[in-house]
Amino acid sequence: MKQITLLGATGSIGIQTLEVIRLHPDHFSVYALAFGKNIEKALPLIKEFSPKIVVVQDKTIKKQVESEFPDIQVLLGTEGMIAASTAADVDVLVNAVMGSVGLPATLAAIEAQKVIAIANKETLVTAGHLVMEAAYRYNVDLLPVDSEHSAIFQSLNGEKPDTIERLVLTASGGSFRDKTREELKGVTVEDALNHPNWSMGAKITVDSASMMNKGLEVIEAHWLFHIPYEQIDVILHRESVIHSMVEYKDRSVIAQLGTPDMKVPIQYALTYPDRLDLSMTKRLNLEEIATLHFQPMDYERFRCLKLAYQAGKEGGSMTTVLNAANEQAVELFLNGKISFLDIETLIEQALESHQTIAKPDLETIIAIDQETRSQVCSYLK
Amino acid sequence: MKQITLLGATGSIGIQTLEVIRLHPDHFSVYALAFGKNIEKALPLIKEFSPKIVVVQDKTIKKQVESEFPDIQVLLGTEGMIAASTAADVDVLVNAVMGSVGLPATLAAIEAQKVIAIANKETLVTAGHLVMEAAYRYNVDLLPVDSEHSAIFQSLNGEKPDTIERLVLTASGGSFRDKTREELKGVTVEDALNHPNWSMGAKITVDSASMMNKGLEVIEAHWLFHIPYEQIDVILHRESVIHSMVEYKDRSVIAQLGTPDMKVPIQYALTYPDRLDLSMTKRLNLEEIATLHFQPMDYERFRCLKLAYQAGKEGGSMTTVLNAANEQAVELFLNGKISFLDIETLIEQALESHQTIAKPDLETIIAIDQETRSQVCSYLK
Repeated sequence: MKQITLLGATGSIGIQTLEVIRLHPDHFSVYALAFGKNIEKALPLIKEFSPKIVVVQDKTIKKQVESEFPDIQVLLGTEGMIAASTAADVDVLVNAVMGSVGLPATLAAIEAQKVIAIANKETLVTAGHLVMEAAYRYNVDLLPVDSEHSAIFQSLNGEKPDTIERLVLTASGGSFRDKTREELKGVTVEDALNHPNWSMGAKITVDSASMMNKGLEVIEAHWLFHIPYEQIDVILHRESVIHSMVEYKDRSVIAQLGTPDMKVPIQYALTYPDRLDLSMTKRLNLEEIATLHFQPMDYERFRCLKLAYQAGKEGGSMTTVLNAANEQAVELFLNGKISFLDIETLIEQALESHQTIAKPDLETIIAIDQETRSQVCSYLK
Repeated sequence: MKQITLLGATGSIGIQTLEVIRLHPDHFSVYALAFGKNIEKALPLIKEFSPKIVVVQDKTIKKQVESEFPDIQVLLGTEGMIAASTAADVDVLVNAVMGSVGLPATLAAIEAQKVIAIANKETLVTAGHLVMEAAYRYNVDLLPVDSEHSAIFQSLNGEKPDTIERLVLTASGGSFRDKTREELKGVTVEDALNHPNWSMGAKITVDSASMMNKGLEVIEAHWLFHIPYEQIDVILHRESVIHSMVEYKDRSVIAQLGTPDMKVPIQYALTYPDRLDLSMTKRLNLEEIATLHFQPMDYERFRCLKLAYQAGKEGGSMTTVLNAANEQAVELFLNGKISFLDIETLIEQALESHQTIAKPDLETIIAIDQETRSQVCSYLK
């Protein structure tokens, strides 16, 4: 029986993680749940899964939960997430919070030698060197939950790292894959949130439309699999059937395929190196799909991806800036303050005005993250 | 340094095995070469690779080789193949002879605990239970060389057998994939030998056109991977880019892909569990290929595949009959004695007239093999 702490329980990944846990009551139980503001969604989940600890982000919500569940310990904020992630009984931390706010809990859980199922890609983008150094030092497994990274991880099963030639991440192209840059000028928030293949949260759906999501994934892959950016390629694949691939030096390519359902990579992170039934997921039926399409990535059409490669190759604090500028710009877009193409412009400005710090510590990263967000907002005035 | 005995040195797989050995002189050397009649092709290979032993099938050729290479031991026939495959210095037997003639050497090499790279699928089709029982008893690795089985083998890397849901073999469709059964009536030997994707020997190319090759592969997969026929599917995939797949019980599908080049699976069998460079092989370029197609298999259009499943499920000596009838019928077709569609008719007749023996021993298998061949020839009269 694996005891799980789940950060981001009411988000898309969080809900699907609980679906997987619900399917296998003999294998998994919930030790702690953390959520942000969505108390309506959270209350029935707390009731159903009876965690030992609940973590919230706000004192009013804390009181509400305490009055509903007097026997459950309710903790607050980053410190609460750290306590819930490092408790002695916890086996696996599923970190599915959105944005760089997930970083301190991940680092603390690594130091406590927990298995980490990492759905919070911003953690690796903003502080990959710190996270991977810690994982190496404490000999901790970082198991990817992102479908692309899970695909690569599965394609690396039983293989030696020095035989890898390149990683190939597939990209569906997102909501705007068939639009020209001219057409992108007029798109709305509603247009951006209409993803063709995957049902996900708002931030990641906008990131998919801008192709920044793939950029963040390239940086995540770089850190997770210790592969130079020159050996990470991205290919457009509309159907999202091949979730990603590994090419080996003998020209053999191993790929992981499936219907687009996040429960598959989530469950794999929880069961690795084993697999359990997941018969509620639709079986891949290639006869029915009939055709798979592939196109070269257009880095001028999708400039955010180009910016991500540039920031990744520059390294150091530059990816912290990339991530913070993107998070802030997407929030401004979702709130109707800027247009879709302003996202990449604001990120580019933030990157250009930043002086790279080679190996920033956690404090520096948090400071740069905050500075960048303020700066992005200040460009608007 | 692995010392290799290669049976079938002048065939398509044999020549490509030697190309791989030539690429990696620090890793492989040739201990013995066996060939049939093609002495013009064999002599320069013997000169280049200086094996300790050469095995031939005919006394005249034996004398020719002995006079050219007085320092090399030249052996004859099945006994020669057995001696060359079981010698103490041999590490790996690459069995790439065509047809059931490869069986005794494979069994002997298993008893001598050699690693077997098996390109001779007829061995498993005709006597899968004997080969696998021996491999299990002597704890010997049977490494597939067929591209489909190598793909499955690679897709099983690091996975537990009890998590397999099904194997999916891909079929290019062979030379006649776009022809109706009506159009098949008039096809010639030359038409059959014109395979769209792979360059291979005559027998296997005809088997591809009739889809019997896929049928033999289904039976081979059943034995190699211990999977019931009900969990082995075949899908038409024109481009031969996905070489085969494994679906796991969590709906995750792992596949091996690449350009159609037999050197990749040959080398993998020689280097397993490691991989070596194979930069002479063209890198898979999905952007250039752009589209992959999949279609359901039509078992009425490709009746040989249906017959193979039936024989496989019946088991025992029925697959020996299937294989022998097919070998004989293909030979008759290649010699212009029968039409293309007669192949399946002759096989069906042979299967219908056979009474299954549940667990035939080697002697019985050889007798049934011979009987079936005579019977198939007798139908012609």
